[in-house]
Amino acid sequence: MDKPLILVSNDDGITSKGIRVLIDAMSEIGEVVVVAPNSPQSGMGHAITIGDTLRLDESNIFDDHITAYECSGTPADCVKLAKHHVLKDRRPDLVVSGINHGSNTAISVLYSGTMSAAIEGAIENLPSIGFSLCDYSSKADFSHTIEYVKKIANMVLKNGLPNGVALNVNIPPKRNEPIKGIKICRQANAKWQEEFDKRRDPNGRQYFWMTGNFMNFDTGEDNDEWAIANNYVSVVPCQFDMTAYDAMDFLNEDGGFGE
Amino acid sequence: MDKPLILVSNDDGITSKGIRVLIDAMSEIGEVVVVAPNSPQSGMGHAITIGDTLRLDESNIFDDHITAYECSGTPADCVKLAKHHVLKDRRPDLVVSGINHGSNTAISVLYSGTMSAAIEGAIENLPSIGFSLCDYSSKADFSHTIEYVKKIANMVLKNGLPNGVALNVNIPPKRNEPIKGIKICRQANAKWQEEFDKRRDPNGRQYFWMTGNFMNFDTGEDNDEWAIANNYVSVVPCQFDMTAYDAMDFLNEDGGFGE
Repeated sequence: MDKPLILVSNDDGITSKGIRVLIDAMSEIGEVVVVAPNSPQSGMGHAITIGDTLRLDESNIFDDHITAYECSGTPADCVKLAKHHVLKDRRPDLVVSGINHGSNTAISVLYSGTMSAAIEGAIENLPSIGFSLCDYSSKADFSHTIEYVKKIANMVLKNGLPNGVALNVNIPPKRNEPIKGIKICRQANAKWQEEFDKRRDPNGRQYFWMTGNFMNFDTGEDNDEWAIANNYVSVVPCQFDMTAYDAMDFLNEDGGFGE
Repeated sequence: MDKPLILVSNDDGITSKGIRVLIDAMSEIGEVVVVAPNSPQSGMGHAITIGDTLRLDESNIFDDHITAYECSGTPADCVKLAKHHVLKDRRPDLVVSGINHGSNTAISVLYSGTMSAAIEGAIENLPSIGFSLCDYSSKADFSHTIEYVKKIANMVLKNGLPNGVALNVNIPPKRNEPIKGIKICRQANAKWQEEFDKRRDPNGRQYFWMTGNFMNFDTGEDNDEWAIANNYVSVVPCQFDMTAYDAMDFLNEDGGFGE
């Protein structure tokens, strides 16, 4: 059997540690093609480049057997360029994004460039996974992620995913105890509470830094925040149909739209 | 009774025609505070500004009774800055975004800066609506939107919205026949099929323009694409819980994650 074709992208940029770990892991499983941003794109959400040009250049920073391109655009742009230009008639068997340097649990899935690459893969009907390591430390240890990244990639290659669904995989930071296992989870009800740090530039003009605290309102044990806190790898299936079906009756009845 | 406090933002930027139409309409209903990007932010999805500073300056381009600020960030940044800095202890009764110059039906909700401002409002538990006019013409006529924008804003002010839900409102282009009414819809199964137009810059280096065609795979009559094509205003309730609950059983059983 031919080796599976695996497209790799991320949002921390092509020079990040996490994408190197992911490429090494995927090289053990299949043929790897990389299309990743040429600069960090954290927090880019599902942004795409409209009204501006895109650059795409071959990159030689990985081993010779890795085909790699760096792109001036967002993670979503990278997957679109990979699918419709770089790979063209070759259909990837798997799209993987990451390994993000930091958590993408709960509401962060909306802001995450890592997950936008995976969601973009799902929009193209390709089995797609975003991987994140819940450790913001500059010396974050990625070594314990490799086993789980390979295991989950192999499961998805073997069993597929439902149409329109991408996986949001978060991996706990390296702790003294080994990881307990993998949990299928829902997105936790937790969000960022922003604060703005107001400063003056050298010319006296004001500017702001966005800061904030993560607030977890979720008391359940079936969500990604719980899983990470309890040393499980969390896997949240994510869809891009954002319709709140449960709200439709309310709108037509009590919401006044049915009149 | 006090006039309701209405926060206005958009993604086409503070100088766009659509935000002026929206501000005029909202001024008839309540007290308006504007926090909008100082440059076009189309296609920014749910991007936020991480690792960079934000500017926020008062703007005098509207009537004296309108408090307005222009911001260097994304639509999501604007709503965060409005909530946590500009308004602080004043809670808006309504967040509105738009009127976008162009459609945000179907999958476009993911890429839409207009909707990211509305979704950000919903994350803050504020009743929130994104408005878009399905007309890309540079001379697009916004006059017929006013009646529906005011009607829907008043309904939401009166009846509220379920927690965690924002409305994605699309309004058909001005046609010879009057609009038939308002339909509560689901997000259509339709997407962009990208093509990349490869060119050479004056130095011989290649670059790309993203282009593409909109492909509608949806044959139903309950979705936003159908509504717009049939001259209805479409209203899709949108949620930010992206969990694909239906996929959880598959993953645990046939997906191999339950082992």
